[in-house]
Amino acid sequence: MIAPDLHIDRDRLLARIEALAEVGAIAGGGCCRLALTDEDRAGRDLVVAWMRELGLAVTVDRIGNVFGTRPGRRDGPPVMTGSHLDTVRTGGRYDGPLGVLAGLEIVQVLDAAGVETEHPLAVAVFTNEEGARFTPDMMGSLGYVGGLDVQTILDTADAEGETVGACLQRIGYDGDAPVGAQEVRAFVELHIEQGPVLEEAGTQIGVVDSLQGISWTEYRIRGVTNHAGTTPMRLRHDAGYAAAAIATEVRAITRDFGGNQVGTVGALELEPNAINVVADAARVTVDLRNTDEAVLQQAEARLANFVQQLADDEGVEIDARSLVRFEPVVFDPALVDRVEARAQTRGLSTRRMPSGAGHDAQMLARVCPTAMIFTPSVGGISHNVREYTAPADIEAGANVLLDVLVELLER
Amino acid sequence: MIAPDLHIDRDRLLARIEALAEVGAIAGGGCCRLALTDEDRAGRDLVVAWMRELGLAVTVDRIGNVFGTRPGRRDGPPVMTGSHLDTVRTGGRYDGPLGVLAGLEIVQVLDAAGVETEHPLAVAVFTNEEGARFTPDMMGSLGYVGGLDVQTILDTADAEGETVGACLQRIGYDGDAPVGAQEVRAFVELHIEQGPVLEEAGTQIGVVDSLQGISWTEYRIRGVTNHAGTTPMRLRHDAGYAAAAIATEVRAITRDFGGNQVGTVGALELEPNAINVVADAARVTVDLRNTDEAVLQQAEARLANFVQQLADDEGVEIDARSLVRFEPVVFDPALVDRVEARAQTRGLSTRRMPSGAGHDAQMLARVCPTAMIFTPSVGGISHNVREYTAPADIEAGANVLLDVLVELLER
Repeated sequence: MIAPDLHIDRDRLLARIEALAEVGAIAGGGCCRLALTDEDRAGRDLVVAWMRELGLAVTVDRIGNVFGTRPGRRDGPPVMTGSHLDTVRTGGRYDGPLGVLAGLEIVQVLDAAGVETEHPLAVAVFTNEEGARFTPDMMGSLGYVGGLDVQTILDTADAEGETVGACLQRIGYDGDAPVGAQEVRAFVELHIEQGPVLEEAGTQIGVVDSLQGISWTEYRIRGVTNHAGTTPMRLRHDAGYAAAAIATEVRAITRDFGGNQVGTVGALELEPNAINVVADAARVTVDLRNTDEAVLQQAEARLANFVQQLADDEGVEIDARSLVRFEPVVFDPALVDRVEARAQTRGLSTRRMPSGAGHDAQMLARVCPTAMIFTPSVGGISHNVREYTAPADIEAGANVLLDVLVELLER
Repeated sequence: MIAPDLHIDRDRLLARIEALAEVGAIAGGGCCRLALTDEDRAGRDLVVAWMRELGLAVTVDRIGNVFGTRPGRRDGPPVMTGSHLDTVRTGGRYDGPLGVLAGLEIVQVLDAAGVETEHPLAVAVFTNEEGARFTPDMMGSLGYVGGLDVQTILDTADAEGETVGACLQRIGYDGDAPVGAQEVRAFVELHIEQGPVLEEAGTQIGVVDSLQGISWTEYRIRGVTNHAGTTPMRLRHDAGYAAAAIATEVRAITRDFGGNQVGTVGALELEPNAINVVADAARVTVDLRNTDEAVLQQAEARLANFVQQLADDEGVEIDARSLVRFEPVVFDPALVDRVEARAQTRGLSTRRMPSGAGHDAQMLARVCPTAMIFTPSVGGISHNVREYTAPADIEAGANVLLDVLVELLER
């Protein structure tokens, strides 16, 4: 059953987004709701209150994931949507909340229209998606799909030594539901793009077909400090030059590989960092991403060869340490097609695209058909108080989610 | 009159170097005698006491330069030698003191041998050569040759706002001799190389024929901060990449130009300096040096063109600011020949070379025939507590200075 006569209520959805943004509000219009802080609790409390108002059955599992479930005609695995409520330290109001609150809005639309569905619909709030306080990010969804055991999660400490378990108890979200016990029929997450592609192309809906694999490497370089005037070039072992050469090689790799290969050197530090002293130490980080695991491995191999040759040529020691390595995720092709079709039925412009950021959906993809819907981010800005998505785009994205969920709920 | 039967007393010279190194001694065997501090005063007091013991006429000029003069048979311009006593914050014991104390040793050798000379011999201590506390470096010698007026020097403040004038008063070196009133017949400075060239070549004496021109430029780059995953390469304006590209271009310039062109990127900073964020700001410094002004200008021009093209290609703003610009100095050819000849008469191995660092001699070269003698620096290390020159090399260098001065004093 397609429900073309159903539409989300834009103002009601925006009002919930605004109300939630008051929780942990910071200067400039953004939010600070670091995972499992008092602000996170207050945000969760508000959303749980809305869930109860909507008559949803609320469960909280042992790692603080919250599910509000609307029953179907039969019991069994729910169709699930949702996202997260935690933010980075200076976050925006859309990254996370949009996916959760669109889910609540859809429940309200179905209720108002008296729609009964075959399957239950669950709206999920996953714990610590950002990873800004506890490592790793996407912790709640990773635990949900069995990628990290419950005790390890509960014992994970923040920089001050406070554990997830202790924080969950303190804020009252140490639930008793077993983690991941429930099967999921399908998972669809609505999220802001957090990048500039949709806005630049003038496209309303991003049909996310994959999620980039991520490879983070830190290089620590040890050279020899020397006087910038008195040391001939042939006698130098310049850690600063080696760091810069790694950065320009990363750019060359992206140029030569093309496609959706991206590469970033965001951090680079020299010691002693003085204008007339050849640096004897440097630290540089490399972030490589691709949606194709084989190509990502080729990029890593090329960089590793370059670094080895560079160390030999310059006479410096370079230690490489892998900080993060995720393989790419490919979303369910049939579900991705369905998202695209429903957007087009609505008359919306669409673009198939990978996600460059990590999302809870990438974890759910391990256990059920999964897809994502992106809405445009103005200026591509995210993790910033200036994060913004226009009301019309929020409405469009939520309507596509509505249509996709309605189909899934009847299948 | 050449005086092949005169020799400096190695142990006596080393004893003075050791005694002076006790003043402002720091861990590791180095010294901290920042210009016009209590430590600098104590070092000056010790050297002035030695000057008086040797019967030298001591004068202090208005900017604190100290001269100890041994009379000649006739009055008139002295032959001058000397250097400085101030150090960087974690300096060694040879950079500066070697040149001053070798001058005193030579006075003592002449006295002991009952040698009268035609011209007076002055041993100079110039104020604030290092520039570690007050800018510019080589301040005292620059003032001496009229390159900077006395009032400007006296009004120059350190980072805490203390002026040179106030500091000179405090430490009692606000002399009344007019600055640079005295003509100089010739100036010869003995100094450690502060680089690795002599040691690497196994050469005992560096015959310094020139001093590199220095060009320091600071680039401040303004790009756009972006997410390392969600921003396609073609939409980036990466300040960090631009900074790294400048650093690798500097290396390419030195490779393509060859000769004694050197180039260093010693300082490079990114903001926000995070692994997964495209940097929106960067600062990078470039230090270019060459003994040939025309070639140095070519290097500057190539870099400037590169930076302009880079700014266009990457879509970033790059502001360039010249921090330091000195033209190369060519020392007096006849005097340089004389240094080389006297070293060879002593049976010492020699190497003609430019100086990569700045020295008081470069200022004196504006007003009189000037040359320098370098002794090897172990490991090329300087401006470091591990700065070291072997006793045999100190003796050799001081003997060459002795022979050269004796010739000049009789001409």
